[in-house]
Amino acid sequence: MRVDGEPATPTIRATPDGAAVEIIDQTKLPHRFEILRVDALEAAARAISDMQVRGAPLIGVMAAYGLAFALKADASDAGLAAGFARLLGTRPTAVNLRWALDRVTRAVAPLPPPARFAAAFREAGAIAREDVALCEAIGLHGLALVKAAAARKGGGRVNILTHCNAGRLATVDWGTATAPIYKAHDAGLDLFVYVDETRPRNQGASLTAFELGRHGVPHAVVADNAGGHLMQQGEVDLVIVGADRVTAAGDVCNKIGTYLKALAAFDVGVPFYVAAPSPSFDFSIFDGLRDIPIEARAPEEVTHVAGLADSGEVLRVRLTPAGSAALNPAFDVTPARLVTALVTERGLVAPNAAAIAAAFPQG
Amino acid sequence: MRVDGEPATPTIRATPDGAAVEIIDQTKLPHRFEILRVDALEAAARAISDMQVRGAPLIGVMAAYGLAFALKADASDAGLAAGFARLLGTRPTAVNLRWALDRVTRAVAPLPPPARFAAAFREAGAIAREDVALCEAIGLHGLALVKAAAARKGGGRVNILTHCNAGRLATVDWGTATAPIYKAHDAGLDLFVYVDETRPRNQGASLTAFELGRHGVPHAVVADNAGGHLMQQGEVDLVIVGADRVTAAGDVCNKIGTYLKALAAFDVGVPFYVAAPSPSFDFSIFDGLRDIPIEARAPEEVTHVAGLADSGEVLRVRLTPAGSAALNPAFDVTPARLVTALVTERGLVAPNAAAIAAAFPQG
Repeated sequence: MRVDGEPATPTIRATPDGAAVEIIDQTKLPHRFEILRVDALEAAARAISDMQVRGAPLIGVMAAYGLAFALKADASDAGLAAGFARLLGTRPTAVNLRWALDRVTRAVAPLPPPARFAAAFREAGAIAREDVALCEAIGLHGLALVKAAAARKGGGRVNILTHCNAGRLATVDWGTATAPIYKAHDAGLDLFVYVDETRPRNQGASLTAFELGRHGVPHAVVADNAGGHLMQQGEVDLVIVGADRVTAAGDVCNKIGTYLKALAAFDVGVPFYVAAPSPSFDFSIFDGLRDIPIEARAPEEVTHVAGLADSGEVLRVRLTPAGSAALNPAFDVTPARLVTALVTERGLVAPNAAAIAAAFPQG
Repeated sequence: MRVDGEPATPTIRATPDGAAVEIIDQTKLPHRFEILRVDALEAAARAISDMQVRGAPLIGVMAAYGLAFALKADASDAGLAAGFARLLGTRPTAVNLRWALDRVTRAVAPLPPPARFAAAFREAGAIAREDVALCEAIGLHGLALVKAAAARKGGGRVNILTHCNAGRLATVDWGTATAPIYKAHDAGLDLFVYVDETRPRNQGASLTAFELGRHGVPHAVVADNAGGHLMQQGEVDLVIVGADRVTAAGDVCNKIGTYLKALAAFDVGVPFYVAAPSPSFDFSIFDGLRDIPIEARAPEEVTHVAGLADSGEVLRVRLTPAGSAALNPAFDVTPARLVTALVTERGLVAPNAAAIAAAFPQG
């Protein structure tokens, strides 16, 4: 993707010396734009758990590089296993994490230890490049949906609602849910995006708004509470979100609050699309509500929020009274029955076991 | 109600000289507790529009006193009409506002101007006292619902989810949605309350958490996004919210995001109750989606938030990138079909025109 005519800064990229990666520290956005160098297992693990990188596809890429760094320090089988375990434990919900770790492990386990770091680093790079292709394919399939919506409106503005950040910043480039938006915008379609703030970590207000703004896509941030009302009032033509894990039967685990938007879309009759590349599918499970572990994050993400003060400082302030507890489940599961279609690199897939198996026969 | 064994500070009370009211400035909670004196029309109007007082019942009481203050300055028919118009224009959605203004007008219009201020002030006091009785009656009817839920759980903890602040702070005392909670807590039932943060103004995190904490009711603040997941996981036994306006057919207009929680409750099979005294009913309309004006508030309520910094200062910080717009619809409409029952001062009322007409034949 290009921003202001220039290639956008990659969310993650290997350094020329092949020894490290540089990432955008997403905990600092939108108020600060900082690049971090990561060259060790522990830093990679913390980058994931602290959400300096986040978004299921990007978590996978970071984990792949993290496993390479583990092997740089200890290329033995024990070092591989320890690195795998450390990274797998960073976050429980996005399945891309295990998928990427499995893939790097398969690539390096047969090799003699001295060859493992370089091979793992190459494999991580391949995963990153493939992620761009997967997202771009999702963008082209999704573009057809946006074009169809525009045609239904006689060429009028297409209003899209999205939740959280399944954007360029959640991937290596293009994003999943945003790829169709960028493709449609680049194709000259008249678009408007309602961006759910996405409490408690505000990925919508801080990341999606940031990247849509940089790309020139008209948008407005709305409270997470507003989506149902907007749909009731006919202000939303389609909803598109990403996924942290899609089951073999089409249940979708995504950022907390996604289920509520899916319910409203279903109630009102607005199409609800989930953009997910195949590495976000967990073909081993069917029942998302029963079988997907939901991360519980720190209560401080609810009780406190950071923002830009008038002084120009980024400050954290407390929202709640002293003594009030908070709970912070980070994901929820949208049952397949509420999903209009899955937008994958292989096109639209109906959210049911037969269609998913047909689309991904190797799954 | 009592807090720590002492009567709670009233949300609004007439001063002993009968010339003013004192209000809790709710824009300062939970970090500062400040009492403001209001003794003029303009200050009363601003207290409502700036949400120093908020909550449909309390808006009604403040408006009644505001009309009295208008008459203190100009007791003519023109003064009465101007005061009525100024106050009615402060906020469009809560119907208690017009109800209270109509009631004071009926009480004073037949009187000679010199008698009008004192009569209006008395009538406002009567509305305030009656509000306490209405809320306490709602509390007793709602207590039966909580007791029934406790019995279904064999005396186990009853988990209640609420949205926004339909609490003591939204009324003169007891609250509407919180009245059953306080009555049940005082009766020794084992309760836990999930408090929706209620972006963008955080009435849950700042007001409901504050008053539940002061009253010793166990609770946790959750992001507005979390309620659906909590219900899916069986963590919520009942939902109870307030209302800004209930139509003659049982559609419920309440704080933005209420509709999303009602959808989840319906989908999962959790009872969804709306606590509303009769002054919150608009017997003149039936279709809430078509006929209730939804207030659009300032985008800055979405883009910025205030909280307590480590320095001890209350600071406002910006959450969104410079250049990103925001939209801020303040209410939504929950169709009657999603409401289990209306909890009124006359008991439970089914959300349909016949039941509402039967319960409120003078309506």
